[in-house]
Amino acid sequence: MRPQGSTLTVAVLFHSGYGHTKVVAESLFAGVSSVAGITAHLISVDELPAPGADRSLGGKWQLLQAADCIVFGTPTYMGGVSAKFKEFADRSSSIWFKQGWKDKLAAGFSNSGNLSGDRLSSLQYLSLFASQHGMVWINLGMLPGNPHDANTPNRVGSSLGLMTQSDQASPEVTPGKGDREAARLFGVRIAQTTLRWTK
Amino acid sequence: MRPQGSTLTVAVLFHSGYGHTKVVAESLFAGVSSVAGITAHLISVDELPAPGADRSLGGKWQLLQAADCIVFGTPTYMGGVSAKFKEFADRSSSIWFKQGWKDKLAAGFSNSGNLSGDRLSSLQYLSLFASQHGMVWINLGMLPGNPHDANTPNRVGSSLGLMTQSDQASPEVTPGKGDREAARLFGVRIAQTTLRWTK
Amino acid sequence: MRPQGSTLTVAVLFHSGYGHTKVVAESLFAGVSSVAGITAHLISVDELPAPGADRSLGGKWQLLQAADCIVFGTPTYMGGVSAKFKEFADRSSSIWFKQGWKDKLAAGFSNSGNLSGDRLSSLQYLSLFASQHGMVWINLGMLPGNPHDANTPNRVGSSLGLMTQSDQASPEVTPGKGDREAARLFGVRIAQTTLRWTK
Amino acid sequence: MRPQGSTLTVAVLFHSGYGHTKVVAESLFAGVSSVAGITAHLISVDELPAPGADRSLGGKWQLLQAADCIVFGTPTYMGGVSAKFKEFADRSSSIWFKQGWKDKLAAGFSNSGNLSGDRLSSLQYLSLFASQHGMVWINLGMLPGNPHDANTPNRVGSSLGLMTQSDQASPEVTPGKGDREAARLFGVRIAQTTLRWTK
Repeated sequence: MRPQGSTLTVAVLFHSGYGHTKVVAESLFAGVSSVAGITAHLISVDELPAPGADRSLGGKWQLLQAADCIVFGTPTYMGGVSAKFKEFADRSSSIWFKQGWKDKLAAGFSNSGNLSGDRLSSLQYLSLFASQHGMVWINLGMLPGNPHDANTPNRVGSSLGLMTQSDQASPEVTPGKGDREAARLFGVRIAQTTLRWTK
Repeated sequence: MRPQGSTLTVAVLFHSGYGHTKVVAESLFAGVSSVAGITAHLISVDELPAPGADRSLGGKWQLLQAADCIVFGTPTYMGGVSAKFKEFADRSSSIWFKQGWKDKLAAGFSNSGNLSGDRLSSLQYLSLFASQHGMVWINLGMLPGNPHDANTPNRVGSSLGLMTQSDQASPEVTPGKGDREAARLFGVRIAQTTLRWTK
Repeated sequence: MRPQGSTLTVAVLFHSGYGHTKVVAESLFAGVSSVAGITAHLISVDELPAPGADRSLGGKWQLLQAADCIVFGTPTYMGGVSAKFKEFADRSSSIWFKQGWKDKLAAGFSNSGNLSGDRLSSLQYLSLFASQHGMVWINLGMLPGNPHDANTPNRVGSSLGLMTQSDQASPEVTPGKGDREAARLFGVRIAQTTLRWTK
Repeated sequence: MRPQGSTLTVAVLFHSGYGHTKVVAESLFAGVSSVAGITAHLISVDELPAPGADRSLGGKWQLLQAADCIVFGTPTYMGGVSAKFKEFADRSSSIWFKQGWKDKLAAGFSNSGNLSGDRLSSLQYLSLFASQHGMVWINLGMLPGNPHDANTPNRVGSSLGLMTQSDQASPEVTPGKGDREAARLFGVRIAQTTLRWTK
């Protein structure tokens, strides 16, 4: 039983190579955090220690284990999730074996340099990865925005998760306003879904 | 507000070309129906009338509209969902436009003549279709069974939804026992998830 | 043996609901036709007769049978190829059964109203469909264009095939210049690949 | 110009965690090697050095660069290609940037412990990865085998590439006879396609 008065938790787990995916993770994290009754954690895959000799997973892996919902975020490199993200996924196999994350909620996002850029491939992978863990998948829940206005959320028209696009410039300026707002809105949706699911 | 004492509903919507997918749908339907507090409907795509001149969708479309969860089932033909199923999906675009199914639960299954047979492609499509509708996706939640025992549920090791395999024989005898049991168990899981989600 | 002096043929087969995919098909057809030594055919799925009582496929199906390369084009509706296109695919199963298209070349394109819009799902389907037929798949072979310039070919950054985007306006004006040019260039590439492959 | 009398080359590049994927790679390599006019190389991703400080790729990367066809092989872990394989893929981005592998041929295979086991996801990734490199994809070209006979090639009914299944036992005994034969046959097809394509 969950102790009375405790809040639910959403973990936003991401890999970021150059800082752009991190910016999206932070916006999504802010959206999650803005919902009452939810505690959010922002975790980089770099913070997850390698398994011990006995395959045990300690440190921030415990935050994932305790979370009601885990959001997975990764750049799209060469048509798929980054090798660093995949390393995390492969390490989770000892959890999969015991179905330790079964019935948690999950969601996903991916950033790349292009408007389409095969990011759907990464989102498909994230949802399949979540399905191996027996999780329940929260879709984006947002109609496509205006393709001609970079300031509208979801201008690229994604549905399985969030897609954002960054230019070859500093993460301070890219991805743009519409993408950041979409990340925030998706965070709010994820938090509200977690409240609904877990109550 | 949902009236006090009313049950929740799960609609099992399927297309079946030769009867094998129908058998799976019936087993899944039996599993759903066995859970207290759930009313199940078994609907073939053939029972859904074409849109009216005003694009309105009547008849059994209303059962889908009222359902808390819709399960999509289709044979895999030539590497994807059947044309008949896709016709249904395309007709649902007027609902998509208004996000009329948003936040309903969804799940999927596919039958084909092979062990692998590109059925994952159909399940990927069904989950993407559900994501366009803003639905929440229930994964199979079952570890892979023994690949050498046709009587174990999920012997092929699916995760995104249910995969079953039928031989070129009467639907009375194929798909086999393990696949039918997997369908029943998935139905139970879907019903329990619907209760948890909607309460 | 191919008779001396005969040309090779590329069939561009498409479905178009509102005329936008047809425009792309025509641009691609023009590119194919511009290459010496290639005869191109532009065929709508509506021109392919239903199978006879003996499952035989006559009429323009013979043009497909005789082609060295078949290019498949479809709108993306509700996250996948159109039902009309899928009907064609399902009807081709009697050809699949005899592997009648084995070792032909294949390629694909899809149009939708969004920049990303889950078109990758349609291209994935087309390539999987071609693989069931034992065909060899020609990828787009074009680096991503500038995402901020609608006049550059492949601005959305596709790779498995061609993605184009149309607005809710007449096919006379949309998809735009960059997409039409990408279609033409892809047609040239397909024709050149067919020459290289078949000689 | 290719020097007169030189043979064409096929590189079989793989990652193997426990030796099962290596066995498949070896069978496929044997098939390729059996075709006159082809020189085959068998390369593990572990043999590819990390990029130099200037991002240059030396050592066995040169064999890949010189090959007419590259076959990619990977286990399926947690629903996708292994992290080790993905590391290779990500490192190839400097080649992608210059389209250094454009118009080479490519093919793929994946091994896992299940009959279906989401291996299609890995093959889809491999084909998408090849498409980013502008390569031309050779499909399996084999009808589904008998699902009830583990000794028939392609008993699982794959098409986009080769799927094999290993039990939790030594690579000396698993994957089984049918899978090894399928790998050999696929190797022959790949070699013959390379001869046809490159001449």
